[in-house]
Amino acid sequence: MKYCKIPDETIRRLPVYLRGLLFTAEQGKERISSQDLAYFVGVNSWQVRKDFSYFGGFGTRGVGYEIDKLARQIKKILRVDVVKRAALVGVGNLGLAVLAYSGFKMYGLEIAAAFDADPKKVGRKINNVKIEEVSKLRTLKRRKIELAIIAVPRDAAQKIADSLVKAGVKGILNFSPCYISVPKRVKVITIDIAMDLARLPYYMPAG
Amino acid sequence: MKYCKIPDETIRRLPVYLRGLLFTAEQGKERISSQDLAYFVGVNSWQVRKDFSYFGGFGTRGVGYEIDKLARQIKKILRVDVVKRAALVGVGNLGLAVLAYSGFKMYGLEIAAAFDADPKKVGRKINNVKIEEVSKLRTLKRRKIELAIIAVPRDAAQKIADSLVKAGVKGILNFSPCYISVPKRVKVITIDIAMDLARLPYYMPAG
Repeated sequence: MKYCKIPDETIRRLPVYLRGLLFTAEQGKERISSQDLAYFVGVNSWQVRKDFSYFGGFGTRGVGYEIDKLARQIKKILRVDVVKRAALVGVGNLGLAVLAYSGFKMYGLEIAAAFDADPKKVGRKINNVKIEEVSKLRTLKRRKIELAIIAVPRDAAQKIADSLVKAGVKGILNFSPCYISVPKRVKVITIDIAMDLARLPYYMPAG
Repeated sequence: MKYCKIPDETIRRLPVYLRGLLFTAEQGKERISSQDLAYFVGVNSWQVRKDFSYFGGFGTRGVGYEIDKLARQIKKILRVDVVKRAALVGVGNLGLAVLAYSGFKMYGLEIAAAFDADPKKVGRKINNVKIEEVSKLRTLKRRKIELAIIAVPRDAAQKIADSLVKAGVKGILNFSPCYISVPKRVKVITIDIAMDLARLPYYMPAG
Protein backbone atom coordinates (compact mmCIF):
# COMPACT_ATOMS: atom_id res chain seq x y z
CA MET A 1 0.00 0.00 0.00
CA LYS A 2 1.30 3.46 -0.90
CA TYR A 3 -0.05 6.47 0.95
CA CYS A 4 -0.25 9.80 -0.79
CA LYS A 5 1.03 13.16 0.33
CA ILE A 6 2.61 11.88 3.52
CA PRO A 7 5.42 14.21 4.58
CA ASP A 8 8.93 12.74 4.58
CA GLU A 9 9.21 14.01 8.14
CA THR A 10 6.33 11.79 9.21
CA ILE A 11 8.02 8.81 7.56
CA ARG A 12 11.28 9.76 9.28
CA ARG A 13 9.54 9.64 12.65
CA LEU A 14 7.85 6.24 12.11
CA PRO A 15 10.97 4.19 13.01
CA VAL A 16 11.44 6.44 16.04
CA TYR A 17 7.88 5.70 17.18
CA LEU A 18 8.57 2.03 16.53
CA ARG A 19 11.65 2.14 18.73
CA GLY A 20 9.71 3.87 21.51
CA LEU A 21 7.05 1.16 21.27
CA LEU A 22 9.53 -1.70 21.34
CA PHE A 23 11.41 -0.25 24.32
CA THR A 24 8.15 0.26 26.20
CA ALA A 25 7.07 -3.32 25.40
CA GLU A 26 10.41 -4.52 26.84
CA GLN A 27 9.32 -2.98 30.14
CA GLY A 28 6.29 -5.28 30.14
CA LYS A 29 3.72 -2.64 29.17
CA GLU A 30 0.87 -3.32 26.73
CA ARG A 31 -0.49 0.18 26.12
CA ILE A 32 1.07 3.61 25.69
CA SER A 33 -0.41 7.11 25.67
CA SER A 34 0.34 9.56 22.87
CA GLN A 35 2.04 11.73 25.52
CA ASP A 36 4.47 8.97 26.50
CA LEU A 37 5.11 8.12 22.86
CA ALA A 38 5.67 11.79 22.09
CA TYR A 39 8.20 11.95 24.93
CA PHE A 40 10.25 9.15 23.34
CA VAL A 41 10.34 10.85 19.98
CA GLY A 42 10.89 14.38 21.23
CA VAL A 43 7.76 15.86 19.67
CA ASN A 44 4.48 16.86 21.30
CA SER A 45 1.46 14.58 21.48
CA TRP A 46 -0.34 16.67 18.90
CA GLN A 47 2.35 15.72 16.39
CA VAL A 48 1.97 12.02 17.20
CA ARG A 49 -1.77 12.13 16.50
CA LYS A 50 -1.18 14.22 13.36
CA ASP A 51 1.44 11.76 12.05
CA PHE A 52 -0.85 8.78 12.68
CA SER A 53 -3.82 10.56 11.11
CA TYR A 54 -2.16 10.10 7.68
CA PHE A 55 -2.78 6.39 8.09
CA GLY A 56 -6.30 6.75 9.38
CA GLY A 57 -5.30 7.14 13.05
CA PHE A 58 -4.41 4.22 15.27
CA GLY A 59 -5.77 4.90 18.74
CA THR A 60 -8.96 5.47 20.61
CA ARG A 61 -8.99 8.80 22.40
CA GLY A 62 -8.29 8.48 26.12
CA VAL A 63 -7.22 4.84 26.19
CA GLY A 64 -3.86 5.10 24.43
CA TYR A 65 -2.39 2.77 21.84
CA GLU A 66 -2.05 -1.01 21.95
CA ILE A 67 1.72 -1.37 21.64
CA ASP A 68 1.81 -4.69 19.75
CA LYS A 69 -0.83 -3.68 17.25
CA LEU A 70 0.64 -0.24 16.61
CA ALA A 71 4.15 -1.69 16.15
CA ARG A 72 2.77 -4.15 13.58
CA GLN A 73 0.94 -1.37 11.73
CA ILE A 74 4.03 0.85 11.60
CA LYS A 75 6.18 -2.05 10.37
CA LYS A 76 3.65 -2.70 7.62
CA ILE A 77 3.65 0.93 6.51
CA LEU A 78 7.46 0.98 6.49
CA ARG A 79 7.40 -2.39 4.65
CA VAL A 80 9.65 -4.01 7.21
CA ASP A 81 6.93 -6.44 8.32
CA VAL A 82 8.82 -9.07 6.34
CA VAL A 83 12.59 -9.19 6.89
CA LYS A 84 14.47 -6.90 4.48
CA ARG A 85 18.02 -7.92 3.68
CA ALA A 86 20.71 -5.33 3.08
CA ALA A 87 24.23 -5.34 1.65
CA LEU A 88 27.12 -3.46 3.22
CA VAL A 89 29.79 -2.01 0.94
CA GLY A 90 33.05 -1.05 2.67
CA VAL A 91 34.28 -2.95 5.71
CA GLY A 92 36.50 -0.32 7.36
CA ASN A 93 35.96 0.83 10.95
CA LEU A 94 32.47 2.09 10.24
CA GLY A 95 31.58 -1.03 8.24
CA LEU A 96 32.81 -3.23 11.09
CA ALA A 97 30.64 -1.25 13.49
CA VAL A 98 27.65 -1.80 11.18
CA LEU A 99 28.34 -5.55 11.00
CA ALA A 100 28.64 -5.76 14.78
CA TYR A 101 25.49 -3.75 15.42
CA SER A 102 22.72 -5.85 16.90
CA GLY A 103 19.94 -3.31 16.50
CA PHE A 104 18.84 -4.10 12.93
CA LYS A 105 16.73 -7.13 13.80
CA MET A 106 14.32 -5.03 15.87
CA TYR A 107 13.33 -3.21 12.68
CA GLY A 108 13.06 -6.31 10.52
CA LEU A 109 16.43 -5.69 8.88
CA GLU A 110 19.35 -8.03 8.26
CA ILE A 111 22.84 -7.36 6.91
CA ALA A 112 23.03 -10.33 4.55
CA ALA A 113 26.12 -9.48 2.46
CA ALA A 114 29.31 -7.44 2.76
CA PHE A 115 31.78 -6.25 0.13
CA ASP A 116 35.23 -4.69 0.24
CA ALA A 117 37.87 -3.74 -2.32
CA ASP A 118 40.76 -4.93 -0.10
CA PRO A 119 41.81 -8.49 -1.10
CA LYS A 120 43.10 -9.02 2.46
CA LYS A 121 39.58 -8.60 3.82
CA VAL A 122 37.80 -10.68 1.18
CA GLY A 123 36.91 -14.14 2.50
CA ARG A 124 36.89 -13.13 6.17
CA LYS A 125 33.70 -13.85 8.03
CA ILE A 126 32.30 -11.32 10.50
CA ASN A 127 29.11 -11.97 12.44
CA ASN A 128 28.27 -14.78 10.02
CA VAL A 129 28.65 -12.51 6.99
CA LYS A 130 31.43 -13.39 4.53
CA ILE A 131 33.21 -10.43 2.94
CA GLU A 132 33.08 -10.61 -0.87
CA GLU A 133 34.94 -8.83 -3.67
CA VAL A 134 33.37 -5.59 -4.85
CA SER A 135 33.13 -7.11 -8.34
CA LYS A 136 30.49 -9.45 -6.92
CA LEU A 137 28.06 -6.57 -6.33
CA ARG A 138 26.28 -7.59 -9.53
CA THR A 139 25.09 -10.78 -7.80
CA LEU A 140 22.76 -8.71 -5.62
CA LYS A 141 20.05 -8.79 -8.27
CA ARG A 142 20.00 -12.58 -8.32
CA ARG A 143 20.05 -12.65 -4.52
CA LYS A 144 17.13 -10.20 -4.42
CA ILE A 145 18.95 -7.77 -2.10
CA GLU A 146 17.59 -4.29 -2.83
CA LEU A 147 18.92 -2.34 0.15
CA ALA A 148 22.53 -1.24 0.55
CA ILE A 149 24.75 0.68 2.94
CA ILE A 150 27.70 2.60 1.49
CA ALA A 151 30.59 2.95 3.95
CA VAL A 152 33.49 3.53 1.55
CA PRO A 153 35.82 6.54 1.25
CA ARG A 154 34.36 9.62 -0.41
CA ASP A 155 36.23 9.11 -3.70
CA ALA A 156 34.81 5.63 -4.22
CA ALA A 157 31.20 6.36 -3.27
CA GLN A 158 29.76 7.36 -6.66
CA LYS A 159 31.28 4.36 -8.46
CA ILE A 160 29.87 2.00 -5.83
CA ALA A 161 26.48 3.71 -6.08
CA ASP A 162 26.51 3.20 -9.87
CA SER A 163 27.27 -0.51 -9.42
CA LEU A 164 24.52 -0.85 -6.83
CA VAL A 165 21.96 0.80 -9.10
CA LYS A 166 23.03 -1.49 -11.96
CA ALA A 167 22.54 -4.46 -9.60
CA GLY A 168 18.93 -3.44 -8.97
CA VAL A 169 19.37 -1.82 -5.57
CA LYS A 170 16.46 0.54 -4.80
CA GLY A 171 17.44 2.06 -1.47
CA ILE A 172 20.85 3.31 -0.33
CA LEU A 173 22.00 4.48 3.09
CA ASN A 174 25.08 6.59 2.35
CA PHE A 175 27.71 7.24 5.02
CA SER A 176 30.21 8.81 2.63
CA PRO A 177 30.41 12.57 3.13
CA CYS A 178 29.37 13.41 -0.42
CA TYR A 179 26.33 13.61 -2.64
CA ILE A 180 25.78 10.59 -4.81
CA SER A 181 23.80 10.85 -7.98
CA VAL A 182 21.30 8.08 -8.76
CA PRO A 183 18.19 7.67 -10.94
CA LYS A 184 15.03 9.09 -9.42
CA ARG A 185 13.57 5.64 -8.74
CA VAL A 186 16.37 4.97 -6.23
CA LYS A 187 16.03 6.48 -2.75
CA VAL A 188 19.20 7.68 -1.02
CA ILE A 189 19.46 8.71 2.62
CA THR A 190 22.79 10.31 3.51
CA ILE A 191 24.06 10.18 7.08
CA ASP A 192 26.66 12.65 8.24
CA ILE A 193 27.41 12.43 11.95
CA ALA A 194 29.12 15.82 11.83
CA MET A 195 25.75 17.33 10.85
CA ASP A 196 24.09 15.71 13.83
CA LEU A 197 26.82 16.95 16.15
CA ALA A 198 26.54 20.41 14.58
CA ARG A 199 22.99 20.98 15.78
CA LEU A 200 23.77 20.33 19.44
CA PRO A 201 25.46 23.69 20.25
CA TYR A 202 22.24 25.48 19.26
CA TYR A 203 20.53 23.91 22.26
CA MET A 204 23.39 24.49 24.66
CA PRO A 205 23.08 27.59 26.83
CA ALA A 206 26.16 29.80 26.58
CA GLY A 207 28.70 30.17 29.40
CA MET B 1 21.08 34.90 20.42
CA LYS B 2 18.23 32.46 21.08
CA TYR B 3 15.30 32.40 18.67
CA CYS B 4 11.86 31.56 19.97
CA LYS B 5 9.41 28.96 18.70
CA ILE B 6 11.69 27.63 15.99
CA PRO B 7 10.73 24.03 15.16
CA ASP B 8 13.35 21.36 15.93
CA GLU B 9 12.88 20.22 12.34
CA THR B 10 14.08 23.59 11.07
CA ILE B 11 17.14 23.36 13.31
CA ARG B 12 17.73 19.81 12.07
CA ARG B 13 17.80 21.07 8.49
CA LEU B 14 20.21 23.97 9.13
CA PRO B 15 23.36 21.78 9.02
CA VAL B 16 21.97 20.14 5.87
CA TYR B 17 21.58 23.55 4.23
CA LEU B 18 25.08 24.39 5.40
CA ARG B 19 26.45 21.27 3.75
CA GLY B 20 24.65 22.09 0.51
CA LEU B 21 26.13 25.58 0.60
CA LEU B 22 29.67 24.38 1.29
CA PHE B 23 29.51 21.76 -1.48
CA THR B 24 28.19 24.35 -3.92
CA ALA B 25 30.95 26.76 -2.91
CA GLU B 26 33.51 24.00 -3.62
CA GLN B 27 32.25 24.04 -7.21
CA GLY B 28 33.27 27.70 -7.44
CA LYS B 29 29.78 29.17 -7.24
CA GLU B 30 28.96 32.31 -5.26
CA ARG B 31 25.16 32.31 -5.29
CA ILE B 32 22.50 29.63 -5.00
CA SER B 33 18.75 29.66 -5.64
CA SER B 34 16.30 28.36 -3.06
CA GLN B 35 15.36 25.67 -5.62
CA ASP B 36 18.94 24.38 -5.84
CA LEU B 37 19.34 24.53 -2.07
CA ALA B 38 16.02 22.71 -1.65
CA TYR B 39 17.27 20.01 -4.00
CA PHE B 40 20.31 19.37 -1.79
CA VAL B 41 18.20 19.03 1.32
CA GLY B 42 15.38 17.03 -0.21
CA VAL B 43 12.62 19.52 0.62
CA ASN B 44 10.81 21.95 -1.65
CA SER B 45 11.87 25.58 -2.09
CA TRP B 46 8.84 26.74 -0.13
CA GLN B 47 10.25 24.92 2.91
CA VAL B 48 13.65 26.58 2.47
CA ARG B 49 12.09 30.04 2.52
CA LYS B 50 9.85 29.07 5.45
CA ASP B 51 12.83 27.76 7.45
CA PHE B 52 14.84 30.91 6.79
CA SER B 53 11.88 33.14 7.62
CA TYR B 54 12.32 32.21 11.30
CA PHE B 55 15.57 34.14 11.22
CA GLY B 56 14.19 37.08 9.30
CA GLY B 57 14.82 35.57 5.85
CA PHE B 58 18.19 35.64 4.17
CA GLY B 59 17.67 36.19 0.46
CA THR B 60 16.33 38.71 -1.97
CA ARG B 61 13.56 37.25 -4.10
CA GLY B 62 14.74 36.33 -7.58
CA VAL B 63 18.48 36.72 -7.06
CA GLY B 64 19.14 33.74 -4.78
CA TYR B 65 21.37 33.57 -1.75
CA GLU B 66 24.99 34.67 -1.34
CA ILE B 67 26.61 31.39 -0.37
CA ASP B 68 29.37 32.78 1.88
CA LYS B 69 27.09 35.10 3.75
CA LEU B 70 24.34 32.52 4.24
CA ALA B 71 26.83 29.91 5.45
CA ARG B 72 28.18 32.39 8.02
CA GLN B 73 24.65 33.23 9.18
CA ILE B 74 23.70 29.57 9.60
CA LYS B 75 26.93 28.84 11.50
CA LYS B 76 26.15 31.73 13.81
CA ILE B 77 22.62 30.48 14.50
CA LEU B 78 23.95 26.98 15.17
CA ARG B 79 26.71 28.52 17.34
CA VAL B 80 29.43 26.77 15.40
CA ASP B 81 30.87 30.05 14.13
CA VAL B 82 33.61 29.54 16.72
CA VAL B 83 35.17 26.07 16.82
CA LYS B 84 33.33 23.77 19.22
CA ARG B 85 35.41 20.99 20.74
CA ALA B 86 33.89 17.60 21.49
CA ALA B 87 34.91 14.55 23.49
CA LEU B 88 34.49 10.99 22.24
CA VAL B 89 33.74 8.25 24.76
CA GLY B 90 34.31 4.70 23.51
CA VAL B 91 37.02 3.94 20.96
CA GLY B 92 35.68 0.73 19.43
CA ASN B 93 35.06 0.36 15.69
CA LEU B 94 32.53 3.16 15.64
CA GLY B 95 34.73 5.39 17.81
CA LEU B 96 37.66 4.77 15.48
CA ALA B 97 35.48 5.74 12.52
CA VAL B 98 34.52 8.95 14.35
CA LEU B 99 38.18 9.77 15.06
CA ALA B 100 39.13 9.14 11.43
CA TYR B 101 36.25 11.18 10.04
CA SER B 102 37.44 14.36 8.35
CA GLY B 103 34.04 15.99 7.99
CA PHE B 104 33.77 17.70 11.38
CA LYS B 105 35.93 20.70 10.51
CA MET B 106 33.49 21.84 7.84
CA TYR B 107 30.92 22.44 10.58
CA GLY B 108 33.31 24.12 13.01
CA LEU B 109 33.66 20.97 15.12
CA GLU B 110 36.76 19.28 16.50
CA ILE B 111 37.17 15.97 18.34
CA ALA B 112 39.57 17.19 21.02
CA ALA B 113 39.53 14.28 23.49
CA ALA B 114 38.85 10.54 23.51
CA PHE B 115 38.20 8.13 26.37
CA ASP B 116 38.04 4.36 26.68
CA ALA B 117 37.67 1.87 29.52
CA ASP B 118 40.16 -0.57 27.98
CA PRO B 119 43.65 -0.07 29.55
CA LYS B 120 45.19 -1.48 26.36
CA LYS B 121 43.78 1.44 24.37
CA VAL B 122 44.61 4.18 26.88
CA GLY B 123 47.69 6.14 25.86
CA ARG B 124 47.38 5.36 22.14
CA LYS B 125 47.22 8.35 19.84
CA ILE B 126 44.81 8.38 16.90
CA ASN B 127 44.59 11.34 14.52
CA ASN B 128 46.47 13.44 17.09
CA VAL B 129 43.99 12.59 19.84
CA LYS B 130 45.39 10.66 22.81
CA ILE B 131 43.03 8.09 24.35
CA GLU B 132 42.50 8.70 28.07
CA GLU B 133 41.07 6.65 30.93
CA VAL B 134 37.32 7.01 31.44
CA SER B 135 38.04 8.19 35.00
CA LYS B 136 39.48 11.35 33.43
CA LEU B 137 36.07 12.41 32.11
CA ARG B 138 35.81 14.79 35.06
CA THR B 139 38.61 16.90 33.53
CA LEU B 140 36.25 17.99 30.74
CA LYS B 141 34.89 20.82 32.89
CA ARG B 142 38.35 22.32 33.36
CA ARG B 143 39.07 21.86 29.65
CA LYS B 144 35.79 23.59 28.79
CA ILE B 145 34.61 20.74 26.54
CA GLU B 146 30.81 20.76 26.63
CA LEU B 147 30.00 18.45 23.71
CA ALA B 148 30.36 14.67 23.82
CA ILE B 149 29.80 11.63 21.63
CA ILE B 150 28.85 8.36 23.33
CA ALA B 151 29.98 5.29 21.37
CA VAL B 152 30.09 2.69 24.15
CA PRO B 153 28.12 -0.56 24.50
CA ARG B 154 24.49 -0.20 25.52
CA ASP B 155 25.06 -1.35 29.12
CA ALA B 156 27.66 1.34 29.80
CA ALA B 157 25.86 4.26 28.16
CA GLN B 158 23.84 5.59 31.11
CA LYS B 159 26.83 5.54 33.47
CA ILE B 160 28.94 7.43 30.94
CA ALA B 161 26.11 9.93 30.40
CA ASP B 162 25.95 10.52 34.18
CA SER B 163 29.70 11.18 34.29
CA LEU B 164 29.46 13.54 31.33
CA VAL B 165 26.65 15.53 32.92
CA LYS B 166 28.65 15.73 36.17
CA ALA B 167 31.60 17.05 34.12
CA GLY B 168 29.48 19.89 32.77
CA VAL B 169 28.72 18.50 29.32
CA LYS B 170 25.65 20.18 27.81
CA GLY B 171 25.15 18.31 24.55
CA ILE B 172 25.44 14.57 23.85
CA LEU B 173 25.36 12.67 20.58
CA ASN B 174 24.39 9.14 21.59
CA PHE B 175 25.19 6.17 19.34
CA SER B 176 24.25 3.56 21.93
CA PRO B 177 20.96 1.89 21.03
CA CYS B 178 19.20 2.93 24.24
CA TYR B 179 17.54 5.89 25.86
CA ILE B 180 19.74 7.78 28.25
CA SER B 181 18.26 9.88 30.98
CA VAL B 182 19.78 13.31 31.64
CA PRO B 183 18.65 16.56 33.29
CA LYS B 184 16.48 18.76 31.12
CA ARG B 185 19.25 21.34 30.58
CA VAL B 186 21.29 18.74 28.68
CA LYS B 187 20.38 18.07 25.03
CA VAL B 188 20.71 14.51 23.75
CA ILE B 189 20.48 13.45 20.12
CA THR B 190 20.36 9.69 19.61
CA ILE B 191 21.54 8.17 16.36
CA ASP B 192 20.39 4.70 15.38
CA ILE B 193 21.49 3.67 11.91
CA ALA B 194 18.96 0.85 11.94
CA MET B 195 16.22 3.48 12.13
CA ASP B 196 17.62 5.27 9.11
CA LEU B 197 17.85 2.02 7.17
CA ALA B 198 14.30 1.14 8.27
CA ARG B 199 12.71 4.04 6.42
CA LEU B 200 14.22 3.16 3.05
CA PRO B 201 11.88 0.25 2.16
CA TYR B 202 8.91 2.65 2.36
CA TYR B 203 10.26 4.46 -0.70
CA MET B 204 11.14 1.33 -2.62
CA PRO B 205 8.54 0.21 -5.15
CA ALA B 206 7.58 -3.43 -4.63
CA GLY B 207 8.57 -6.18 -7.04
